[in-house]
Amino acid sequence: MVNKVRDSVHGFIYFTDIEKEVINWPEFQRLRYIKQLALTNYVYPGAVHTRFEHSLGVMEMSSRMFDRLCIKTRSGEMIEKSLKVIGLDKKTARQVLRLASLLHDVGHLPFSHGGEAIIPKGKKHEDISISIIEYLQEKLEKLYFKDITNLVVQLIQKQVVLPELKLLKDIISGNIDADRMDYLLRDSHHCGVDYGYFDHKRLIESLSVIEGINGGLDLAIKHDGIHALEALILARYYMFTQVYCHRTRRIYDNYLKGYMESWKGKISDNFIDVTKYDDVDLIADFRRVAEEESNPFHNFAYRIYNRKHHSMIYETSEFTDARDRRKSEGIYKQLSNIYSKDYNLLIDHGEGNIHKFLVDGEDEAGEEFYVIRNDRECLLTEESHIIKKMPKKFHVVRIYIDSNIISEKISKEAIDELRIKALEVEREVR
Amino acid sequence: MVNKVRDSVHGFIYFTDIEKEVINWPEFQRLRYIKQLALTNYVYPGAVHTRFEHSLGVMEMSSRMFDRLCIKTRSGEMIEKSLKVIGLDKKTARQVLRLASLLHDVGHLPFSHGGEAIIPKGKKHEDISISIIEYLQEKLEKLYFKDITNLVVQLIQKQVVLPELKLLKDIISGNIDADRMDYLLRDSHHCGVDYGYFDHKRLIESLSVIEGINGGLDLAIKHDGIHALEALILARYYMFTQVYCHRTRRIYDNYLKGYMESWKGKISDNFIDVTKYDDVDLIADFRRVAEEESNPFHNFAYRIYNRKHHSMIYETSEFTDARDRRKSEGIYKQLSNIYSKDYNLLIDHGEGNIHKFLVDGEDEAGEEFYVIRNDRECLLTEESHIIKKMPKKFHVVRIYIDSNIISEKISKEAIDELRIKALEVEREVR
Amino acid sequence: MVNKVRDSVHGFIYFTDIEKEVINWPEFQRLRYIKQLALTNYVYPGAVHTRFEHSLGVMEMSSRMFDRLCIKTRSGEMIEKSLKVIGLDKKTARQVLRLASLLHDVGHLPFSHGGEAIIPKGKKHEDISISIIEYLQEKLEKLYFKDITNLVVQLIQKQVVLPELKLLKDIISGNIDADRMDYLLRDSHHCGVDYGYFDHKRLIESLSVIEGINGGLDLAIKHDGIHALEALILARYYMFTQVYCHRTRRIYDNYLKGYMESWKGKISDNFIDVTKYDDVDLIADFRRVAEEESNPFHNFAYRIYNRKHHSMIYETSEFTDARDRRKSEGIYKQLSNIYSKDYNLLIDHGEGNIHKFLVDGEDEAGEEFYVIRNDRECLLTEESHIIKKMPKKFHVVRIYIDSNIISEKISKEAIDELRIKALEVEREVR
Amino acid sequence: MVNKVRDSVHGFIYFTDIEKEVINWPEFQRLRYIKQLALTNYVYPGAVHTRFEHSLGVMEMSSRMFDRLCIKTRSGEMIEKSLKVIGLDKKTARQVLRLASLLHDVGHLPFSHGGEAIIPKGKKHEDISISIIEYLQEKLEKLYFKDITNLVVQLIQKQVVLPELKLLKDIISGNIDADRMDYLLRDSHHCGVDYGYFDHKRLIESLSVIEGINGGLDLAIKHDGIHALEALILARYYMFTQVYCHRTRRIYDNYLKGYMESWKGKISDNFIDVTKYDDVDLIADFRRVAEEESNPFHNFAYRIYNRKHHSMIYETSEFTDARDRRKSEGIYKQLSNIYSKDYNLLIDHGEGNIHKFLVDGEDEAGEEFYVIRNDRECLLTEESHIIKKMPKKFHVVRIYIDSNIISEKISKEAIDELRIKALEVEREVR
Repeated sequence: MVNKVRDSVHGFIYFTDIEKEVINWPEFQRLRYIKQLALTNYVYPGAVHTRFEHSLGVMEMSSRMFDRLCIKTRSGEMIEKSLKVIGLDKKTARQVLRLASLLHDVGHLPFSHGGEAIIPKGKKHEDISISIIEYLQEKLEKLYFKDITNLVVQLIQKQVVLPELKLLKDIISGNIDADRMDYLLRDSHHCGVDYGYFDHKRLIESLSVIEGINGGLDLAIKHDGIHALEALILARYYMFTQVYCHRTRRIYDNYLKGYMESWKGKISDNFIDVTKYDDVDLIADFRRVAEEESNPFHNFAYRIYNRKHHSMIYETSEFTDARDRRKSEGIYKQLSNIYSKDYNLLIDHGEGNIHKFLVDGEDEAGEEFYVIRNDRECLLTEESHIIKKMPKKFHVVRIYIDSNIISEKISKEAIDELRIKALEVEREVR
Repeated sequence: MVNKVRDSVHGFIYFTDIEKEVINWPEFQRLRYIKQLALTNYVYPGAVHTRFEHSLGVMEMSSRMFDRLCIKTRSGEMIEKSLKVIGLDKKTARQVLRLASLLHDVGHLPFSHGGEAIIPKGKKHEDISISIIEYLQEKLEKLYFKDITNLVVQLIQKQVVLPELKLLKDIISGNIDADRMDYLLRDSHHCGVDYGYFDHKRLIESLSVIEGINGGLDLAIKHDGIHALEALILARYYMFTQVYCHRTRRIYDNYLKGYMESWKGKISDNFIDVTKYDDVDLIADFRRVAEEESNPFHNFAYRIYNRKHHSMIYETSEFTDARDRRKSEGIYKQLSNIYSKDYNLLIDHGEGNIHKFLVDGEDEAGEEFYVIRNDRECLLTEESHIIKKMPKKFHVVRIYIDSNIISEKISKEAIDELRIKALEVEREVR
Repeated sequence: MVNKVRDSVHGFIYFTDIEKEVINWPEFQRLRYIKQLALTNYVYPGAVHTRFEHSLGVMEMSSRMFDRLCIKTRSGEMIEKSLKVIGLDKKTARQVLRLASLLHDVGHLPFSHGGEAIIPKGKKHEDISISIIEYLQEKLEKLYFKDITNLVVQLIQKQVVLPELKLLKDIISGNIDADRMDYLLRDSHHCGVDYGYFDHKRLIESLSVIEGINGGLDLAIKHDGIHALEALILARYYMFTQVYCHRTRRIYDNYLKGYMESWKGKISDNFIDVTKYDDVDLIADFRRVAEEESNPFHNFAYRIYNRKHHSMIYETSEFTDARDRRKSEGIYKQLSNIYSKDYNLLIDHGEGNIHKFLVDGEDEAGEEFYVIRNDRECLLTEESHIIKKMPKKFHVVRIYIDSNIISEKISKEAIDELRIKALEVEREVR
Repeated sequence: MVNKVRDSVHGFIYFTDIEKEVINWPEFQRLRYIKQLALTNYVYPGAVHTRFEHSLGVMEMSSRMFDRLCIKTRSGEMIEKSLKVIGLDKKTARQVLRLASLLHDVGHLPFSHGGEAIIPKGKKHEDISISIIEYLQEKLEKLYFKDITNLVVQLIQKQVVLPELKLLKDIISGNIDADRMDYLLRDSHHCGVDYGYFDHKRLIESLSVIEGINGGLDLAIKHDGIHALEALILARYYMFTQVYCHRTRRIYDNYLKGYMESWKGKISDNFIDVTKYDDVDLIADFRRVAEEESNPFHNFAYRIYNRKHHSMIYETSEFTDARDRRKSEGIYKQLSNIYSKDYNLLIDHGEGNIHKFLVDGEDEAGEEFYVIRNDRECLLTEESHIIKKMPKKFHVVRIYIDSNIISEKISKEAIDELRIKALEVEREVR
């Protein structure tokens, strides 16, 4: 039977009885209690939506991408042939793709990326997702078929996979992927901003595949989708700088990171513990600690829960280079020397990837991506003037101040004084 | 200074420094943790938005309504004159209106209407809002002016107020009001449904005032806004039947009501205690009780938290009359006689007001509302064929079943059997 | 090969190489020069869109409706079985449906309905479309297959057809049809009004079929589509009263009708002549005659081209009964007696069908339409409280005045005087 | 009295009684018969909207820009002071701005830019607009005040004006102007594309002014509007390349240009003749000439009216440099040498300005534009990484072929052969 749910971005999302069962498992239901954007609602009040609806949305988007590719004669045949090498047919591959999409975020910690501070070095939330999927192996294989866990894990893990699975993996998480297409649209919708919209229907319509180097297939687009792809990249850039790295959100991310140190013992090496916690627990925890003045994490909790945040006094452009950053650190040090006994100063580096394509004049090697034009494979960065010139990363540095005694309000005059001072120091520091 | 926040429905919402201070008080910030639609997200996953953004939205909408009325020569002068009687000018009245809009929901219990079961008989969430506003009196009057609390309270309380304040009160909560205009649009946006949209800009554009019977002014509309008003009424009807009284939401409201009995002691007669609790506390509470099998409220908590809900086996039309309802009760009794040892049966009455206007063939007296046409005041219900024929209320009755042992899953066959049985019984019962 | 075009309402519209050829024929290209809404752009400046884009839109909508029905197991099988009786498979039926949709308006006269005054009594623009399709028979059958003309004609003509074709015919023009779904959305889009929007995706999603009385199938909807259907009916009502029968558009329709008398000789009984004329010819004609003062049609042409229109002085409600209309005629006569030597008076009856369903308390028999609920076929009018109470027709009467000498401007005072006089007369006339 | 009209892009547009009179003059009404985008409807069927609605839209947008600037204390005062120098107050300046906006396109020839081929060298459609405005001088000054014509003309003409008028002129036609804001949104709406949308509300919200070099004021934006401005520039780029210079539209522009030679005598030096002609005359003319085989312009008319257009066989990137263009010319010549006896070859240069700002690595000097950040004026191109890297112009070269006998259809094979040949030649030509 076909089940459906109304989604705020994609209209109806359909799912099978088997998928319904997976959705009903507590491990997945827990995502109802993990906000997609942590404390972003302090800036955009509408941003309280959850990983639950995002995960359904990714399942929908990856299916649409796959179906679009399969409906075209040429790419449909290429996919069929490639999957056959590893013994899969299109229907089964689609099932695996959908399941992996659904579960890709199942390992998220409370407050999503905000909580990641407690994951051991070198691990990512994807590793936790994998642990949980492996923990569910028996139940999954009973519902689907033997080996599905292994296939799903390959679509989520970072390391290299069977070349024939790479296309599916790229659909979930690659250069043009269901994950980011969904979150850009969804976050824009709930925040009430226009930044993240792009013509996703046209982009999906223009998808194609080409032969990869190592035997599998690579995602590509037809020439008429190039401006929709540019719009996706710009949407990412705008959402990162305006929402995900908004100056107020960044300061709370700092507090969160500090606070999460107190949770370090809670997650054993076995990541399954993660499923015990969600935003409700973390909020309840803040509240308690915000009252316990003797608690070493009191300050973080108090600031977060009572929205007592630092004020920004200095900000670089969105595209700093190493020199700019060194300079900012210099300004921060000098200001600290002068003011640290009166004020609490803080420096923050907000950074992110805008894209990973090969571009002009960047040290770091980018990924090749192809555009099909007149039946020829052309490099994206030769076809798109916008992307060719678009830096891969942005990196903004900000300096904030606040009173040393957090219950005390810092005056507007003090902030202005430090703002002016920062600009003076900027001129001196080299 | 003008502050602003991005709203998912209205674009930017502006507010003054004084208003910012009120917004920052913990009593208002608490609304960040009260979901607008309780457990509706079990049906519409996007519906996790909060009373916080709604309250800002109502402040914005009521200002737009007031400003629109004031900008027109005739209604602007009438308002000025009417306010003068009670010693107010338009600027002050606007401040009071905005503050009352902002605070009208400040007394909401956890899970909004879901939690209302614990308010003493005869009281409503508006009464709690008033208690809290009175509790804040000193701080408010320091920020604004002496007497503002009293004015704000008059705009929120149900009882009759100074006739000259009635217009402001109606703007917040009347037949065409900022509260419902905001929630219809906002709930639609986050649920992802179209039902609640209507041409609110046109409706506001067509607002006017006429002399009321008791000295104040009544809201009215110009003839060209009549179809926008019809659309508002229909939006309300659709949102009520499709979202607020959705069969799955209603069953959880039943559990919630049952569970809230366990909270009865928490709120003293002094309603100020309400500000201690929000959705986080209630959810944490569910979780605890859902594990305590001996707890008398275990069943409710378990059902709510683990989403184990009854299945609907019978449903009437949306517009039952007393006879239909008696019949449904008869069906319920007869089914209970037969099945209650095997199944847990439950009957639910979902009802709501669609509008309060005077209409054809309804016993209950409706409110007169006027449309201005060719400079004459005409009765709305003579001008609008749609509203004239639209019932004031809907009332749907539903019968649900579930296993007596809630951990046991009821089979699809059992549900089908009872569905058929219900239809058989329906034919017999008179 | 698949061809596509960007449509302002439906996104991309796809069509085959064969369909491309038909689209390229001058008989179809002529629709580029027939505005969808005649002189409505005098009221809504954006309303200059053409029958060309509407016809493509209807082809798209009827395909979506048919495909939706075929994708569902039960209705898909019923359709297959029914078509088999007359020797058609689903693929062929779809081709016929698309072609009939594309060509259904090919017989429209200049200014669409505006020009219909010159069609002989008892004939409609559909009859002209049929004549043109029959004229194209040889070319069509060369492209498609023998007999397609006959099938297409059956889907367009008013008279009863093979019962097995009724479903296809109803998809193009019935109670829920592709034609009106497209024009409501499209006219709203270009006029810039909200009236005509409704959740067409949901409505199409809820389509189903049931066994008809005479052997074929009837369109029906599932219960969850009922509010979308109500919205369609309301959209029709609003668009008719606010746009298609707008008081200013109606007055120009009167002039148009008068002017078209001068074209009577142009169309022989053989309707093929129609393909020689379009809006460009008619406009060029207006302009010429607007300068020829001796021409008996000068006045109409001058008024139309120079936008010298009567002013409305009296208007009834949108739902007059026979008595109201008699009364309006009485008012008109009395005013004419008094004023006709100074002013040019005119009475206009604007009327239209809102729907054809069976409803409460209407003399005229309505069409039965079924809603599928709990696998049972229920009468729409018992399920929908809105439609049950919604009149099938509206009929508004308006009286206009203008100067007898059209170059002379009538004063605002004169208009006001007659307005007041009309209201006085209204009170007297019974 | 306030008059209003419903606009498909901006909702209601309001205008005064005086403006209504101007709108009703035949010189302005003529714009109802000038399509905004000439033959673009051959590619996007919805693109039949007119200069009439665009002109109203520009009046609305320029008012919003001006009002936004005036509402802010600082910029409001600067504007007041600057206008005072030339004896204007804000209210009068607003009137002039609105009138100039309304009339800026009144001199457009049939098919808008398509018809410009017949304007004498060195003249532009703005010059014709000015001629017509001067022709209307007496009537305008009777309605408004003495000297308004002169002020309006200064806002439209290209040459330098009073420095104090420059701000108003820039609002109508500058780097961020009402004209392009309106047409990008409007053309997108009617074509049904997403390319031209940008957050115009935010952009207007962020407008500010700074002291200009020569005494007047310059438009600037506040830092928070920078991404909205980037989006405007990108919207322009996308609309130019995807719509205005679409390969099919360009080929028809070529035919139009050729055809318009036949109209050369029609416009005397006195441009007032222009008001005698519109699209209806031009289309009627095409049709006639398309039948007259002996007419020297028969081929152009036949191609345009019967949509017999060349096929593109070669296309460069959107950002060619001089070398690329020389190369394309080389390819064209070589192909002509080989094929010109069998085919009709044609080379087309589609080019346009994307913006005029100062950017990196462009020879041509750009205009400085300032962003206000921390109360400091910063160069736009230092603040916006996107605009800094965005070329000011695009220039695409295309080669087309068609049969020498236009009634003959060129085969798909022939097109493919020439496409391949063109790519071969491309490799050889340097």
